[in-house]
This record gives sequence, structure tokens and C-alpha cells, in this order.
Amino acid sequence: MHIKSPSPSNGSLLKIAVEELTKQGCSVTVSDLYAMQFEPRATRNDIVGHLHNSEAFNYGVETWEAYKRGCLSEDLVEEQKKVREADLLIFQFPLFWFNMPAILKGWMDRVLVQGFAYDFSKIYDGGLLQDKLSLFSFTTGVSQEIYSKEGIGGDIRYVLWPMQHGIMHFCGVKVLEPHICYAPENVSEEKRKEMLAAWTQRLKTLWKEEPINCSPEWYFK
Amino acid sequence: MHIKSPSPSNGSLLKIAVEELTKQGCSVTVSDLYAMQFEPRATRNDIVGHLHNSEAFNYGVETWEAYKRGCLSEDLVEEQKKVREADLLIFQFPLFWFNMPAILKGWMDRVLVQGFAYDFSKIYDGGLLQDKLSLFSFTTGVSQEIYSKEGIGGDIRYVLWPMQHGIMHFCGVKVLEPHICYAPENVSEEKRKEMLAAWTQRLKTLWKEEPINCSPEWYFK
Repeated sequence: MHIKSPSPSNGSLLKIAVEELTKQGCSVTVSDLYAMQFEPRATRNDIVGHLHNSEAFNYGVETWEAYKRGCLSEDLVEEQKKVREADLLIFQFPLFWFNMPAILKGWMDRVLVQGFAYDFSKIYDGGLLQDKLSLFSFTTGVSQEIYSKEGIGGDIRYVLWPMQHGIMHFCGVKVLEPHICYAPENVSEEKRKEMLAAWTQRLKTLWKEEPINCSPEWYFK
Repeated sequence: MHIKSPSPSNGSLLKIAVEELTKQGCSVTVSDLYAMQFEPRATRNDIVGHLHNSEAFNYGVETWEAYKRGCLSEDLVEEQKKVREADLLIFQFPLFWFNMPAILKGWMDRVLVQGFAYDFSKIYDGGLLQDKLSLFSFTTGVSQEIYSKEGIGGDIRYVLWPMQHGIMHFCGVKVLEPHICYAPENVSEEKRKEMLAAWTQRLKTLWKEEPINCSPEWYFK
């Protein structure tokens, strides 16, 4: 089976990040979800062995219990290990339907389980992944004008709320400004080169950046 | 392999909808994505036979071309047939990370391809699925107070923007008020029964409802 990721330009942006950060002396680990054929479906198979309550299966409860017992499936353990060791998580993807593609949403659904990423009162600023930074880097199909307050797509920040606030902030992860390449497939070769150069340039001073103030005001002001 | 859907209460809500709508004389078709082991990953495998451009794989372009040639994979053709025949699409799911679970996001990513659900200037009110209604019915893990303007989760409508506006409205599908069961697992058995009864009750007059005004004002007022 031969699987290619949906958008070629995301490959270039990934490559740039790996090269630039490696050059800086960072240790970079890539989870290429398509290449890994990463499973996006949250099912009973994520728990090895017996269930906590096999009468009424509840994914949240079962993965939490399995995490504590060390009984999560191997692919999840592997991804959690990468997250645990990381200072910065960069999510690189093409925007699909105002959101991340299902394969990446599945990574969020399955990897960030209770006990690992958050716990009872350990959410938002108290989340379990407080020592980490995140950055959503993505390409869109349409122009920046569309994703504005006056555009039919609305402010691009509306799209970022569930990802940045609902997932990363929820787990305590700090969020750097998103990096958005608007409609790279509709622009000139020169403009595309500029986009790639801008990403390289930003990465050079990334570690000096301050996280955004992840409050409703940032998104809906 | 035995796969169960993540939340039991969504099963009850689905069952109620099927029973009530069938009783009304509607012909009801269910796509139980977990039971179908629905594939959420958007890959080259969604195109049967040769690619339009095998040098630089672009999922959007390839599925659009494959749709026109009648070369989409069988599972997608099957789902598109169901959508084509439907007057109303009800999406029943547990909210995962401020969004639908990956398996349902994958349904959106793979089924609603260009040519079928929208086309060049045929988007939003001009979308290709204008004759249809949709309804997002979901359960949450936390209470209604959390999902309010003052709550840490923000207004629940912020969460609805990418789904209702970014997907359904984009394809021309009209949107009925969402149906939300807040934290069914944290409430009393009696309150749960009330929730189920409220859903049954709403379904009785569903066809008389007017779609919401799917504009930024509805979401961010």
C-alpha cells in the first residue's frame, strides 16, 4: 500500500522545520501520521487486555484507567513518549473543513488521554503538559481575505479556538502564534518561495517568542 | 475484532431518533461509523485506478477528478448516495476536544468532495446540497455553565462554527438548532431520562422548525 500525504506544500514546510531546528542543535522527532498509517479511530483496541468496565464501554474512562495501569496500545505509548520528551510541538497540516484533517484529530483524541495530558482539576493553566509550547502551522485552500471578520470564512482565529484553546490550552500547553500559509496552491512560484523563506526566518528566532495570551479576547475581540 | 462506539448515551439518542422518525413515516438510514469501521484517513486509496496527476498528489484535486470520472472508492460512493437521498442529516456524537471525533471528521473530509458537495462558485448559499437540512446532536463531558461566554470553555456556539458554518453551510446545507446533552454521565438517572424524553419530544415537531440564521452574528454576538 502506497500512501502519500494530501498536500505537497506541507511536506516542504515540515522539511524546513526539521532542517532549521536541527541546525540550531535541537533534537527533532517527526511523527509523519500518513507514513505511519496512524489509526485515528478511538476504539476499545486502544486498551490492551481487560476493560475496567466491560458492561458499558466509555472511551475516556477506559483510556484513563489503561494509562494508569500501563495498558494503552503501543502506538499511543510511543506518541506519549515523544510528547513527554518535547519542549515544543509543531502541528503541520493542510486545513480541511475549518479544522485539522481527521488523522491529526485522531492523534489528539487518542494520545492526549486523562492522566497523561490533564486530570481532574489539572486543566488549562494547571494542565499536565505545562512545560511545553505548541505551534499550529497550516496551509489553507483559500485566501487570507476570506478568513477575515468581513470575509465569508470569518476571522481565522475562530478556527483556532477549538485547537489552540480547546486542546492545547486545556492540557496546559502554551501556544505560539500560528503560522499560516494562505492558499499556497493558488499563488505564484515566487510567492510560494517567499512563504517558505518566511517560515525559515521565523524558526530562527522561534525560541525568543512569547506565547499568545490564550483568552477569549485573543480569539473573539 | 469487536469495536464499540465510545459513549453509550449517544447510542440511546441515535435509537430514539431512528424510532421516532420511523414512526413518523420517514425512511431512516443509519451510518454507524464505528460499526462500519469507517476509514477516516484521506489518502490516495480513495481514488480507484490512475491519478489525474501522479507527480504531485493533491487530495482535493484528485477526489474532485475521481468524482467526475466515477472513480471514488466504494465506501465514499455509498455514503454520497445516502446523502443525496436524504432530506435531513443528523450527526450524533460525543464531543471530543471541542469537536467531532476523528472518525466523523474523516467522514466530512472524505465524503463531501468537490463536485459532489460544492464546486467553484457553488459554495455557502449556493452550495450543491441546498435542498438538505442538518442537525448536530451531541453529548459533552462537562456542564453547560462551562460552555458559556463566562465559562472557561467559552460559548458552545464557538465550537459549532467550524462544523455548522465551515462544513454544512459551506455546502449549502441548512442548519437546525443543535441538540446538546450536557454531561449526561455526571447527572442523575432521572435527569438522563429527561434528556432522552426531550429529544423524543423535539423530534416530534422537527419538520416544523426553521433553520438558524447561519451568520457570524448567531455564533459571536
